Amino acid sequence: MARIWSSELVQHVGQRVRLSGWLHRFRQLSEVSFLILRDAQGLAQAVIEDAPTIDQLAALANESVLHVDGMVVAVPQAPGGVELHEPSVTVISTPHEPPPFDLYRPTIKALLPTILDYASLSLRHPRRRAYFRLMAASAEGYRAALRQAHFVEIFTPKLVESATESGANVFELDYFGRPAFLAQSPQFYKQIMVGVFERVFETGPVFRAEPHDTPRHLNQYLSLDFEMGFIDDHFDVMRQLRPVLVSMVQAMQEHAPEAVQQLGIPLPEVPAEIPWIDFQAAQELIEHDTHEQLRGEPDLAPAHERWLGEWAKREHNSDFLFVTGYPMAKRPFYTYPDPKRPEFTNSFDLLFRGLELVTGGQRLHLYQDYLAALEERGQSPEPFAGYLQAFKYGMPPHGGSALGLERWVARIAEVANVRETTLFPRDITRLSP
Amino acid sequence: MARIWSSELVQHVGQRVRLSGWLHRFRQLSEVSFLILRDAQGLAQAVIEDAPTIDQLAALANESVLHVDGMVVAVPQAPGGVELHEPSVTVISTPHEPPPFDLYRPTIKALLPTILDYASLSLRHPRRRAYFRLMAASAEGYRAALRQAHFVEIFTPKLVESATESGANVFELDYFGRPAFLAQSPQFYKQIMVGVFERVFETGPVFRAEPHDTPRHLNQYLSLDFEMGFIDDHFDVMRQLRPVLVSMVQAMQEHAPEAVQQLGIPLPEVPAEIPWIDFQAAQELIEHDTHEQLRGEPDLAPAHERWLGEWAKREHNSDFLFVTGYPMAKRPFYTYPDPKRPEFTNSFDLLFRGLELVTGGQRLHLYQDYLAALEERGQSPEPFAGYLQAFKYGMPPHGGSALGLERWVARIAEVANVRETTLFPRDITRLSP
Repeated sequence: MARIWSSELVQHVGQRVRLSGWLHRFRQLSEVSFLILRDAQGLAQAVIEDAPTIDQLAALANESVLHVDGMVVAVPQAPGGVELHEPSVTVISTPHEPPPFDLYRPTIKALLPTILDYASLSLRHPRRRAYFRLMAASAEGYRAALRQAHFVEIFTPKLVESATESGANVFELDYFGRPAFLAQSPQFYKQIMVGVFERVFETGPVFRAEPHDTPRHLNQYLSLDFEMGFIDDHFDVMRQLRPVLVSMVQAMQEHAPEAVQQLGIPLPEVPAEIPWIDFQAAQELIEHDTHEQLRGEPDLAPAHERWLGEWAKREHNSDFLFVTGYPMAKRPFYTYPDPKRPEFTNSFDLLFRGLELVTGGQRLHLYQDYLAALEERGQSPEPFAGYLQAFKYGMPPHGGSALGLERWVARIAEVANVRETTLFPRDITRLSP
Repeated sequence: MARIWSSELVQHVGQRVRLSGWLHRFRQLSEVSFLILRDAQGLAQAVIEDAPTIDQLAALANESVLHVDGMVVAVPQAPGGVELHEPSVTVISTPHEPPPFDLYRPTIKALLPTILDYASLSLRHPRRRAYFRLMAASAEGYRAALRQAHFVEIFTPKLVESATESGANVFELDYFGRPAFLAQSPQFYKQIMVGVFERVFETGPVFRAEPHDTPRHLNQYLSLDFEMGFIDDHFDVMRQLRPVLVSMVQAMQEHAPEAVQQLGIPLPEVPAEIPWIDFQAAQELIEHDTHEQLRGEPDLAPAHERWLGEWAKREHNSDFLFVTGYPMAKRPFYTYPDPKRPEFTNSFDLLFRGLELVTGGQRLHLYQDYLAALEERGQSPEPFAGYLQAFKYGMPPHGGSALGLERWVARIAEVANVRETTLFPRDITRLSP
């Protein structure tokens, strides 16, 4: 008999079917017992009344892998309105040892380090599965919106000759006898590719050797990048981000509705126009409220971003807020200066519920401007030769952005630590599983 | 004036429009001159008759970035049936130095190392652009077919604690004071994820420190992986591959028809049933024809794969051929043995036009089988603890496959060296650009 998914049971009332999956829970009551089977699509309940099958199941550890053949019966009080009757159970494999925590409780009763140490098991919990369905849907929504707008997907090297952004916090390795680095971002390559396709995107891993141990940092994360040519300034990039975010939210609703329901969370609404505030104006607002001295600070602290997130919700009823015009001091050398105030930049961050989600901006596009920018920072252009070559041969004004996918899902799912929305997180202490 | 794409010109006959792009070529003839502008979507021709504009353009190097405003006129003999008349040209940026080769010739007149050294320029050639449009479309076709079949996209770590497959040919790096490796494949993680979503896929970079310098090896490539649970054997995996390949071909036709046309190549047809041949039977066929002694050889050499590719075309009119049942000796420890002949395996390669494109098979799914397999190879289970954990807690029979995207595009585009179908290839000598 061909197996069906648990989600297809309702279409088979009155038929004998096969389900396959994991023994999620076996509940022995005095009158009747219930087998809850978990497959990729959800849970299904089978009612067991015969003593041999009860004995068979009582002897199995949770997470045993089973075929369950039975008659589909519509029962209003059953989960999903259907259950299996008179099931016969075939054991495919049994656990080598019983699971150290239960997967059938609303949340896993273990601390985060244990949950991460037992990733292969804890990821089977319905709530944790939901995070990663939202992640898959979001990635697809991101790509769909950009393909729609004539962006071409690219695949760029993760092994590079020179440290991408700043030279700091990069992983170094031996590449056939010479040093190589893991790419901190696809920044240089996506810019080069503006010269080829004008509009490009990549959804790939990036690597940061940052020795931070915070709830929002990972040493590998998935960066959703795009870059586009023939812009006027960074506001064109910001305008392109809106339909991308809309598409990411829609994709979660369309491709992962059960995950949204599982988590019981409202998806964010992307306003028709995402509000924005200038960096200095934002500092003044925060100063006025908190009496902190921020003038001259080159960046916003996480607490300030949270403050601005609350302000955007209060003032604009928006989960999203662009902060524009960051000081040059904290931005990389390829950043385009604000023509009117060259100590500030044509750059932005997008805060989502008070957390930096996206960084972006306009980039330099003239070869001589790159040479000048590097000289000003006391850096030799030599290590950047492969990158600078693109600007030797004619490049248009361009810009782009990068979105951290794990942070997006963490904010959507309302979990505090980005490790929870990473399948197998990498941090300063964690390299396994 | 808002710019339009060159591909949209035909919809604007009789209107004045703006194009933006690169000076692909300026042809000065005695009576009239032609500006060929290249943008992301293609080429457009503008007719120049006034002396000041001719002088302006004659002074510009190719690859200058321009706005060209002009009247769209239908002219049957023009490329695409339309051209711009009475254009006015605005220069956005000019090259710092003239390009070292022409992009307007049918192929770039330079050797491969030069083409790769000047990637930021050579990738702008229409023919090279076509390769990477086919690549983007193929990746999307791969994902679409698997989403359709309830596979969930995953994003797995590329920094791992133990060498994935064999311990050989891995890049090692320092991870906050301890050794880490770059993942040779997402193999372990996609198997773990079978326990979570049953069916998963990933399209991500993999890293091989192989010191080979061949036309078909790269040290980083894009691996299109999937893995599925509740299979009977490797033939279930092979059956799932067919609609995936069909979708990849369809996506090229649908999303990149201009690229297919540009290359002037026939796309492969995926037969209703992809032919397959057992490894030993394949060896016997080749022996019979070539009088080479192959019996006992644990693998096929590239020449043998080419021979089989020609045989499949001749005998089955197929560009695709599965070879099944490889000897255990050449397959990794997680490979499921053929129950009837345990020195052979439930594994396969898919040859595409005589080149190994996909490797796949059924995997072990019982914890004790993993311990036995590692012991037989004299390997300690300890470095694999995070992986083996998944099998401690109940796993179904499962299998999967991995397809090398650059090889696929190389075979489709009929180029001999896989470096040509890699944006920025990494090989034993090449780490830049």
